[in-house]
Amino acid sequence: MRNSIETITSLQNPKVKEVTALQSSSSLRREKGLFVVEGRREVERCVESGFRLRSVFYCPALCRHFPIPPEEVMIFEVSEAVYGKMAYRGGTEGLLAVVCGSARDRSLGALDCNGLGDNPLIVVVESVEKPGNLGAMLRTADASGVSAVIVCDPQTDLYNPNLIRASLGGVFTRNIAVCTSAEAISWLKARGIRILTAQLQDSRLYYDTDMTGGTALVFGTEADGLSDIWRRAADAHIRIPMLGGIDSLNVSVSMAILCYEALRQRHAVRQSDRYGE
Amino acid sequence: MRNSIETITSLQNPKVKEVTALQSSSSLRREKGLFVVEGRREVERCVESGFRLRSVFYCPALCRHFPIPPEEVMIFEVSEAVYGKMAYRGGTEGLLAVVCGSARDRSLGALDCNGLGDNPLIVVVESVEKPGNLGAMLRTADASGVSAVIVCDPQTDLYNPNLIRASLGGVFTRNIAVCTSAEAISWLKARGIRILTAQLQDSRLYYDTDMTGGTALVFGTEADGLSDIWRRAADAHIRIPMLGGIDSLNVSVSMAILCYEALRQRHAVRQSDRYGE
Repeated sequence: MRNSIETITSLQNPKVKEVTALQSSSSLRREKGLFVVEGRREVERCVESGFRLRSVFYCPALCRHFPIPPEEVMIFEVSEAVYGKMAYRGGTEGLLAVVCGSARDRSLGALDCNGLGDNPLIVVVESVEKPGNLGAMLRTADASGVSAVIVCDPQTDLYNPNLIRASLGGVFTRNIAVCTSAEAISWLKARGIRILTAQLQDSRLYYDTDMTGGTALVFGTEADGLSDIWRRAADAHIRIPMLGGIDSLNVSVSMAILCYEALRQRHAVRQSDRYGE
Repeated sequence: MRNSIETITSLQNPKVKEVTALQSSSSLRREKGLFVVEGRREVERCVESGFRLRSVFYCPALCRHFPIPPEEVMIFEVSEAVYGKMAYRGGTEGLLAVVCGSARDRSLGALDCNGLGDNPLIVVVESVEKPGNLGAMLRTADASGVSAVIVCDPQTDLYNPNLIRASLGGVFTRNIAVCTSAEAISWLKARGIRILTAQLQDSRLYYDTDMTGGTALVFGTEADGLSDIWRRAADAHIRIPMLGGIDSLNVSVSMAILCYEALRQRHAVRQSDRYGE
């Protein structure tokens, strides 16, 4: 038996209005426990990660095929004009879904349950304001094999459309926790994970710093950097050399440089283990 | 003698219309040889880099002080409404300038004249489409001490407002050349600079690749990667490991990881020279 499909051509349809409202309002996303995902790959990744779809909207003129969702999902066929109104960005292949977000456990406890492995590499992001930056960091975290990302005192919700887009679906993984800075520090200390803060003052070069043991790399806001609670909690301060006239890197770029250096060091350790050095 | 200051309060003023047209039209920027820079730091960096201002627009309600330009520059005091219309982005401190861009020599020959030092580290960017990505790469190039950036067959002009913004003024340096891919390859080969292309196929891990000699790191378009001409010209193909479900990094993030690895390797060489290892 096929899912029943309803057709929407009116921009005033309440379903259309709900989607546009969810796209723009973080408080509505929180209140309803729902968010919107655009694009075939992103919707697939979202489902693979265990999220439950509530409804799917597709535009036949833009979307040739899409994975047939389970029967309990409502499917709406929409006109190009309606899709254009609902979609936050272009080029998303005429497919978007409304997803239940509230069921996902984003507590620190859930990280333990999902397993962090030996010598975890944790990324901590404190109060980052720009959803695009946080999304880019989640994309890089996935690629570089980061064990978990802890988002402290966020200025944006995880289901902001810019964040989802920049993360390329990296936001759907289970190894993201949201908590206060104090909770994160206790959690890291209790597990003997070394806290390295990215800051210029009283710091050593990042590539002269050992990251092969359990390590947390901590990044602050774009404007003000890290708060004092993290500076005090740090086991070491590390810096990326700045050789030019511009005195800072984008926070997601800094994070990528440090995560890949950790990966390089860990690879080198495994290589020397293998050859008995 | 002070510069004379003219006041503009009308949104219909031809000067205002010229600025908004320059912001949005790359063909007008090319035709007139002019571009727009927003923000006090950006304007300062632009002047320090030897660009000549043609006019400065400031909004007293937003801009407390700004460096007094030389006498031949026209200065306009504008209302908040007028500034809001001209400015491409918020938070630019109520100051923008129209700048002469056509005088800057962006040929490969100019790179030689400006001096590349021994063992230059060159970044080559082929056909990158997104101005924000190219701007971010110029910011990172400045920070990581890249000797020069060569932009091949660009899909965007260097003075696109998004590019200037993302570069944090890094676009104003003298060590950026624009040319065809064929010209860049001849130039690199003639100087014995090793060409490393970032690609997944037939590649070795980037951190197992020596970048201490003269090295060019080559990056392709966001969508299609590198063209065949670069793949064939390459002395080696290098890849960044991808450990997660997402199969790519943002091009500006890839570039930062590779440039900082080159910097790390070069630092390690200097350290071992110093200690006679």
